[in-house]
Amino acid sequence: MSINHQVRLAARPSGLPRATDWSLTTEAVPDPGPGQFVVAVSHVSIDPAMRGWMNAGASYIPPVEIGAVMRAGAVGRVTASAHPGFAVGDDVYGVFGVQEYAVSDGRGVVRIDTSLAAPSTYLGALGMPALTAYFGLLDTGKLKEGDTVVVSGAAGAVGSMAGQIAKIKGARVIGIAGGPDKCRALLDDFGFDAAIDYRADNVRRALREHAPGGVDVYFDNVGGEILDAVLTRLARGARVVICGAISQYNETQVRGPANYTMLLVARASMTGMLVFDYEDQYPQAMAELAGWLRDGRIVAREHVVHGGVVDFPQTLLMLFDGVNTGKLVLALDGS
Amino acid sequence: MSINHQVRLAARPSGLPRATDWSLTTEAVPDPGPGQFVVAVSHVSIDPAMRGWMNAGASYIPPVEIGAVMRAGAVGRVTASAHPGFAVGDDVYGVFGVQEYAVSDGRGVVRIDTSLAAPSTYLGALGMPALTAYFGLLDTGKLKEGDTVVVSGAAGAVGSMAGQIAKIKGARVIGIAGGPDKCRALLDDFGFDAAIDYRADNVRRALREHAPGGVDVYFDNVGGEILDAVLTRLARGARVVICGAISQYNETQVRGPANYTMLLVARASMTGMLVFDYEDQYPQAMAELAGWLRDGRIVAREHVVHGGVVDFPQTLLMLFDGVNTGKLVLALDGS
Repeated sequence: MSINHQVRLAARPSGLPRATDWSLTTEAVPDPGPGQFVVAVSHVSIDPAMRGWMNAGASYIPPVEIGAVMRAGAVGRVTASAHPGFAVGDDVYGVFGVQEYAVSDGRGVVRIDTSLAAPSTYLGALGMPALTAYFGLLDTGKLKEGDTVVVSGAAGAVGSMAGQIAKIKGARVIGIAGGPDKCRALLDDFGFDAAIDYRADNVRRALREHAPGGVDVYFDNVGGEILDAVLTRLARGARVVICGAISQYNETQVRGPANYTMLLVARASMTGMLVFDYEDQYPQAMAELAGWLRDGRIVAREHVVHGGVVDFPQTLLMLFDGVNTGKLVLALDGS
Repeated sequence: MSINHQVRLAARPSGLPRATDWSLTTEAVPDPGPGQFVVAVSHVSIDPAMRGWMNAGASYIPPVEIGAVMRAGAVGRVTASAHPGFAVGDDVYGVFGVQEYAVSDGRGVVRIDTSLAAPSTYLGALGMPALTAYFGLLDTGKLKEGDTVVVSGAAGAVGSMAGQIAKIKGARVIGIAGGPDKCRALLDDFGFDAAIDYRADNVRRALREHAPGGVDVYFDNVGGEILDAVLTRLARGARVVICGAISQYNETQVRGPANYTMLLVARASMTGMLVFDYEDQYPQAMAELAGWLRDGRIVAREHVVHGGVVDFPQTLLMLFDGVNTGKLVLALDGS
């Protein structure tokens, strides 16, 4: 009998999650019931959105209940199946949670081709972050060739993909990230045209320099002061895509964008997007992304932490410390 | 020789404009040069946007310079002309400024038909406020029949027109205004379906009651706390039209909408609009508005202050005190 180690939400955090907000539990791995299968999880996706799922109250999906296994996208391999659509040995992506084994009825689960790319790639450059960047830029942001695009959180999983996709589509791309290493990665690894280090630079002044004609599309992952700075530099008819607001997720008092009236001056829009709305277009987008990846036109940077589910709480905090460049993944292959 | 009394900007205000921010000047009324004409101003439009024009710095139009006649839309009659397109006796609308006589070269000036409606109507129900409401709702807000629409500043010049146009287009309309008299006007005069008194009611709770299915279009004239309250009640795919932010115009620290991340939850958009972008569509819109006015489907409420240009500073403050219901106009027919 195998043992399933799990991370459960013990308390709703105020501010940054703390060790006491989690409990580590163990269960026997159950046999799959009719129409079910069991997945051995190999890689857990660590995402900014997780912070929102820990809060009480209505959002785009229900919160994680106290005592429930923490929600997480993950990849793994089927180890037992009583489901007609999934066989032992299948590699799959699904919302399996922060645990070593998940029982699934197949809803929201997709098979992945690990001969095309490594399993963890399906959490990043061929997964939700890439799809978020893709639809956020092309649909919500109505990106056009020749646009000047600014991306915040630009060295992160979504931001690094957004910048690369914008380049492929013929835009001039300016990335905003924290620290010289990330800014170097933007220029050297991801091919951005310019990088702004928000910790060292005056963002408004740097935008005046790098985007003298104004910003046509702003892909915002961070909110806060950076959003306010970019709002002062919008070109006429600009599109601001609200993908996330990581700078505010641990704030008890959210800072609203005081410069939002620049939307009026610039006749600009600010629009929220969620990747789940594009589910019926995933296959076409993934095919395009896989082609770019194969041709070397996009680079998948992953920051993989090797360990066990016990390492999840610390790994999650890396997102808010701004430690990771590229997609943050917890690989369940450590001690 | 006639004397032209004028109001000029003497200093840029911080917060609410004060008496010392203005100077009253007199000049002889000049003869029109070639291609010019002179207008005797009868009615001056008093608008929230004026507060923004008094600030330094780039916006959608240049600020009023210190020492210049205060910018204002106005109507009047041509008293002398050396312009082929305008004759003595023509009734006209233009940006004539806060003064008794304006010299014009005809740019931005339109002839008005005072047999169809009183001159002051061309500052409200057949003027910029109505056009702002019309294009803001129908173009920016993408209003559809059956939508639930919320309008703030609902008893004002733009808001009262927005509510009435939304009703004509088959929406359910909830107005937000300050005080029982204005709320009564929303229901009794303007035909709104519901009225929320933001001074007496809890706006979020009242919206839950009056818009249980959420808000499809929010036409925002005020910003601040009311914008934040409505953001929590957006329906999926909602459109927030940023037309103005009168609650913030005299604040030295603007309050940004802390709930802007609800745009993401609701996959909603917030878009700024300026009526000047629709200039080529004014004739068609004015024809439709004139028809509704003639058929009694829209009611033009005006708050007319009778006096002279000397009364302009006090009249402007009425907007920020929330005194007026409907279009605020200074008629230059007093002492």
